[in-house]
Amino acid sequence: MPQSVSALANLYKDALLENVLPFWEHHSIDREQGGFFTCLNREGKVYDTDKFIWLQNRQVWTFSMLYNRLEKRENWLQIAANGAKFLAQQGRDNQGNWYFSLNRAGQPLTQPYNIFSDCFAAMAFSQYALASGEDWAKEVAQQAYSNVLHRQADPKGKYNKTYPGTRPMKTLAVPMILANLSLEMDWLLEGDRLEEVLNQTVQAVMMDFLDAEQGLLYENVTPEGQHLDCFEGRLINPGHGIEAMWFIMDIAHRRQDTELINQAVDAVLKTLQFAWDQTHDGIYYFMDAEGHPPQQLEWDQKLWWVHLETLVALVMGYRLTGRTECWDWFCKVHDYTWNHFVDAEHGEWFGYLNRQGEVLLSLKGGKWKGCFHVPRALYLCWQELEGTSSSGVC
Amino acid sequence: MPQSVSALANLYKDALLENVLPFWEHHSIDREQGGFFTCLNREGKVYDTDKFIWLQNRQVWTFSMLYNRLEKRENWLQIAANGAKFLAQQGRDNQGNWYFSLNRAGQPLTQPYNIFSDCFAAMAFSQYALASGEDWAKEVAQQAYSNVLHRQADPKGKYNKTYPGTRPMKTLAVPMILANLSLEMDWLLEGDRLEEVLNQTVQAVMMDFLDAEQGLLYENVTPEGQHLDCFEGRLINPGHGIEAMWFIMDIAHRRQDTELINQAVDAVLKTLQFAWDQTHDGIYYFMDAEGHPPQQLEWDQKLWWVHLETLVALVMGYRLTGRTECWDWFCKVHDYTWNHFVDAEHGEWFGYLNRQGEVLLSLKGGKWKGCFHVPRALYLCWQELEGTSSSGVC
Repeated sequence: MPQSVSALANLYKDALLENVLPFWEHHSIDREQGGFFTCLNREGKVYDTDKFIWLQNRQVWTFSMLYNRLEKRENWLQIAANGAKFLAQQGRDNQGNWYFSLNRAGQPLTQPYNIFSDCFAAMAFSQYALASGEDWAKEVAQQAYSNVLHRQADPKGKYNKTYPGTRPMKTLAVPMILANLSLEMDWLLEGDRLEEVLNQTVQAVMMDFLDAEQGLLYENVTPEGQHLDCFEGRLINPGHGIEAMWFIMDIAHRRQDTELINQAVDAVLKTLQFAWDQTHDGIYYFMDAEGHPPQQLEWDQKLWWVHLETLVALVMGYRLTGRTECWDWFCKVHDYTWNHFVDAEHGEWFGYLNRQGEVLLSLKGGKWKGCFHVPRALYLCWQELEGTSSSGVC
Repeated sequence: MPQSVSALANLYKDALLENVLPFWEHHSIDREQGGFFTCLNREGKVYDTDKFIWLQNRQVWTFSMLYNRLEKRENWLQIAANGAKFLAQQGRDNQGNWYFSLNRAGQPLTQPYNIFSDCFAAMAFSQYALASGEDWAKEVAQQAYSNVLHRQADPKGKYNKTYPGTRPMKTLAVPMILANLSLEMDWLLEGDRLEEVLNQTVQAVMMDFLDAEQGLLYENVTPEGQHLDCFEGRLINPGHGIEAMWFIMDIAHRRQDTELINQAVDAVLKTLQFAWDQTHDGIYYFMDAEGHPPQQLEWDQKLWWVHLETLVALVMGYRLTGRTECWDWFCKVHDYTWNHFVDAEHGEWFGYLNRQGEVLLSLKGGKWKGCFHVPRALYLCWQELEGTSSSGVC
């Protein structure tokens, strides 16, 4: 049955408010020791109590963001506070670097071996400071942000296994996360800081990592933005590239830069043509730009976040440009996503499907899946659909 | 059609000598810059020229071992020399630690971040020294071996991301590789060194890592050999556990320890009962001992080495004990393996199948698959089958 834009908006809204958030509210809060359980099985039962810093911070971000942007629900602020207090106390080493994981009680398990824990901490505490008005949270956010800036040239520090000099390369994740993070930190940054970072980011992503002819985002390039003929250099992560493109659209929209918006939309559409599984539908997880065998054995799997970030990019691209290819692809990806990832029986979404679209792991949360991509994308799609004046149907 | 033991012995022999070795002889030798290409596509064409130290050393080992144990073919010795000379010159840092990877010319790409490169170097140069009679090769082997012993308590050194003290654990890979390596180094070790290492290994593997009741080998346990309720602590790698068990059978056979042989056989059979895919056949790659979702997205895939090491364990267990369960399982795994992994069209074996048994990556070699598990297992199965007095049929 065809669904109108407003029916679709309601679908995303209801899934967020009546299905996904209640799942995390009921199952993930560690009321005894603070923070969140993210390893939840299909029914929501905790199967592992370790606390992974990315996911702890992302859940603080999600509930704070919804409190700030959607509705001042006291319960949401309390959930965010339960994570923020635990993390501020347990999450960092003496130098203020964020660990990768802790045990249930908050004792460190994995060292701060890259800057992404710090990135998600800065995002989380910025939103939480805004929500709570707490000065200490603002300080935590600012300290994490300065950590990220300080470590960005050498994100892995002593844990970096690359031999220096033989094959220098830079990675898409760094400018991409920096752009998103700086937008989040906007209210805490002084002077032209934000515009400076955004300029650098847009330049790096669109000139160095995007191959404009192919319309593909490369995960790794030389410092000068050239391709590298090796596993890392040929690597395409379609979901990651598409997510980067909606960050760019977001920045371009602030600047009223229609040309940049259209470049980003072009890249999304070309990436989808390249990465759509013509046999079983869905978007591949990893690909080799030259068609060689990728290193990643999970390359052909269909992951929740890949499809959700793609929906955000397509609906945003459609709202900003009105291009019908965006809407057609949105309907196609929407159908696949809602038919395969939603768990009608126990709530929330499956995360990992095999190539055929069957459930590979029935977990609702784990080491990498938490309360983040599903609610963020449902919220953004809902907002974008409400902002669309179009009368399209899916 | 039922196959007799001697027909099976010939099958393994012919596959080794007429199919698998010729594939590597024709496609993998880098005659210009030394060493080997291991990234070979289905037809044997090179798709990437990086040189991964594990695989470089393993290929030196394979050709040296066959020269030493099977036949003094000059060509095999030359191939081994082509690798050994390249590796001795390019493979190590100033402290004699073995890198993880090099570019085609031999410049280092990835730092010596664990001891497995050193392990495979010691094995390779020990066999090559025996084959070539070269003193310099003996020195390389001894230096690599002393590296491994020196680093075994802290195998990752500064690259270790585990926070000290919170959750101490030890890993099966270390004693397992040490046992295999020390047997290989036997002729170069002095006094009781070998027996000492073997005693420690058997003790650690059979008392600490084997759960005798379940019959499963755990990948990670506490220093005291207790289970840990976390992702790493619940991890079962069936192929790895089964491979460990044939190393133990090998040691037990040297010692005429029938009880130990039977303990190892029990573990192989119980691991197979646990890890055999009842729906699609084949042995899973990773499992969680408690049945929770494993971290590894590739958990349900069927890998070549898992099946080949299992065949070695089963045929060795059968020869040493005559237990019919070993033979029945051997026939079952043999059927699956030969029906799914062999590439009748282009030679050599596929490495990676999906759960359904379809080819997931059509490569013949890559970053982790080289000239090692297929030829070693074909050679060992052939020898074990020839050593069997039984009249069993498959």
